[in-house]
Amino acid sequence: MVKDKLIGIDLGGTTIKFAILTVEGEIQQKWSLRTNILDEGTHIVPDIIESINHHLDLYQLDRERVLGIGMGTPGTVDIENGTVQGAFNLNWSNLQTVRQDIETATSLPLTLDNDANSAALGEQWRGAGNNEPEVVFITLGTGVGGGLINEGKLIHGLNGAAGEVGHIIVQPYGYQCTCGNYGCLEQYASATGVVHLAQDFAEEYVGTSKLKAMIDNGEEVTSKIVFDLAKEDDYLANEVVNKVAYYLGLATANIANILNPSSIIIGGGVSAAGNFLLERVQKNFFEFAFKTTRDATKVKLAELGNDAGVYGAASLAKNSKRVLA
Amino acid sequence: MVKDKLIGIDLGGTTIKFAILTVEGEIQQKWSLRTNILDEGTHIVPDIIESINHHLDLYQLDRERVLGIGMGTPGTVDIENGTVQGAFNLNWSNLQTVRQDIETATSLPLTLDNDANSAALGEQWRGAGNNEPEVVFITLGTGVGGGLINEGKLIHGLNGAAGEVGHIIVQPYGYQCTCGNYGCLEQYASATGVVHLAQDFAEEYVGTSKLKAMIDNGEEVTSKIVFDLAKEDDYLANEVVNKVAYYLGLATANIANILNPSSIIIGGGVSAAGNFLLERVQKNFFEFAFKTTRDATKVKLAELGNDAGVYGAASLAKNSKRVLA
Repeated sequence: MVKDKLIGIDLGGTTIKFAILTVEGEIQQKWSLRTNILDEGTHIVPDIIESINHHLDLYQLDRERVLGIGMGTPGTVDIENGTVQGAFNLNWSNLQTVRQDIETATSLPLTLDNDANSAALGEQWRGAGNNEPEVVFITLGTGVGGGLINEGKLIHGLNGAAGEVGHIIVQPYGYQCTCGNYGCLEQYASATGVVHLAQDFAEEYVGTSKLKAMIDNGEEVTSKIVFDLAKEDDYLANEVVNKVAYYLGLATANIANILNPSSIIIGGGVSAAGNFLLERVQKNFFEFAFKTTRDATKVKLAELGNDAGVYGAASLAKNSKRVLA
Repeated sequence: MVKDKLIGIDLGGTTIKFAILTVEGEIQQKWSLRTNILDEGTHIVPDIIESINHHLDLYQLDRERVLGIGMGTPGTVDIENGTVQGAFNLNWSNLQTVRQDIETATSLPLTLDNDANSAALGEQWRGAGNNEPEVVFITLGTGVGGGLINEGKLIHGLNGAAGEVGHIIVQPYGYQCTCGNYGCLEQYASATGVVHLAQDFAEEYVGTSKLKAMIDNGEEVTSKIVFDLAKEDDYLANEVVNKVAYYLGLATANIANILNPSSIIIGGGVSAAGNFLLERVQKNFFEFAFKTTRDATKVKLAELGNDAGVYGAASLAKNSKRVLA
């Protein structure tokens, strides 16, 4: 029987997203489960197994037609052995034999990678990357992560830490990061980083600004509020956005100076600010990028939103050479 | 007949280096030619062809035993088509059909890449990289270049500009670079960059320093003199070396934060300063590298010196799938 279907799974701390796709990358079915992280996350893998088996029955999809399952997961992934550990938002502190458990219970081959790499593959294959072979993805959320794709394949590095672009130093001796270092991109371009910059700028600024007034009044400020106020021409909010764009422009240019990709794609919650942010990032990118790559590399917004993970997971399954004995 | 030999060629602006190696990477014969760049560099390819054919005869090496020729060259290399252009130190401004010419005249397959990539492969295969699959090479000479190796293969990027680490911005709005941008690593860590820093530091410094005295007297100062004076405890020279090491530490850490290699190997003329420079680079690297990669990535000195190019060129031939019809 022709194997013309893929299953993509995006495992997150609050939701597990599933999709059945054609090998060409068209989503045919999507569903999701709440992630049950109780009892040290021991329900997660059984819940995934039950949900796959249930939906294959429900859609009367012969598993002979499924090429494989791909999954993006938080934590440290051992790609060779198909295990995960240190996924704190899943309550997985110990080693989890994810691949062995899912393969045994579904009779389908499973390919694992980390969630940022999976989203990177999704955007490269079916999103803003237009299936080009050299693509870098950066996600700006509560943290900053990413993935690097070269000749159509993920770059993993020695310990799977390649693509940890949130820890590029953009301001030596700057804000301290959760990683212990000072001046990481994550401290300036994540949702919390934007707010941190706003608070610091408000303290120094003496002019009129709604953003400053909110901060001085102790109101809760989010990165979305900063961007919304900047769009309304709030002076201080614009200064904050300019600074965020400077750091993102510097980081994307240096990534391009090193890797010379065709696209650097920016996704995640902060990127919801859209072209308003992107244009300022591009302006800084053009200033810092080496000529060859400045002419070649496009800095773009992500296109797939929350679906990037399942598309990328399906791509993992598609490109995997794994078969069950 | 078993194909157990490789030919490696390192084409430079003053010398063309040749070597015959076993497929295991042992050099068996080495020779070199002066590069004749007269008449728009039209003698270079014929000289290479004649030298190969002559030495194969001289050593009575049956060309059936040669797996192939690899060559590292200056300029912009089109790897697909085996052509080179814009190699100004060879007087090659127009497109050169290097592969076609050499293959036709030697009956051996030729694989081309740029000289920095070739040296990177050499150090990865037979030098400080210990044949590990994830290695970054940086060369500090009159300019700063480099090459990136992932899963044992060069990363080229979209236009072959991957690994242009000399143009990583380490000091936004800093010294202007020959590329037009401001603050590139090359302006702080090349031989000319070290001297530029020394001149600037001397202007500001009012204490006693032999380096300052030399600069104030208009004596010629080289990067070697700066390092030698620093080793003799000259205060100003040490300040310059500390600054160079800071920029190299920042750049190597950010490369590691992006790529997570096992080794970052520093070669080229400036690296002749040896452990004296390396230890200060490592100190800065440890400060700026993300934990996972700080524990994993070793910053090292190159080991092959001028032979890196022929070793790497041979490695290009070894890993090439190219065969002649």
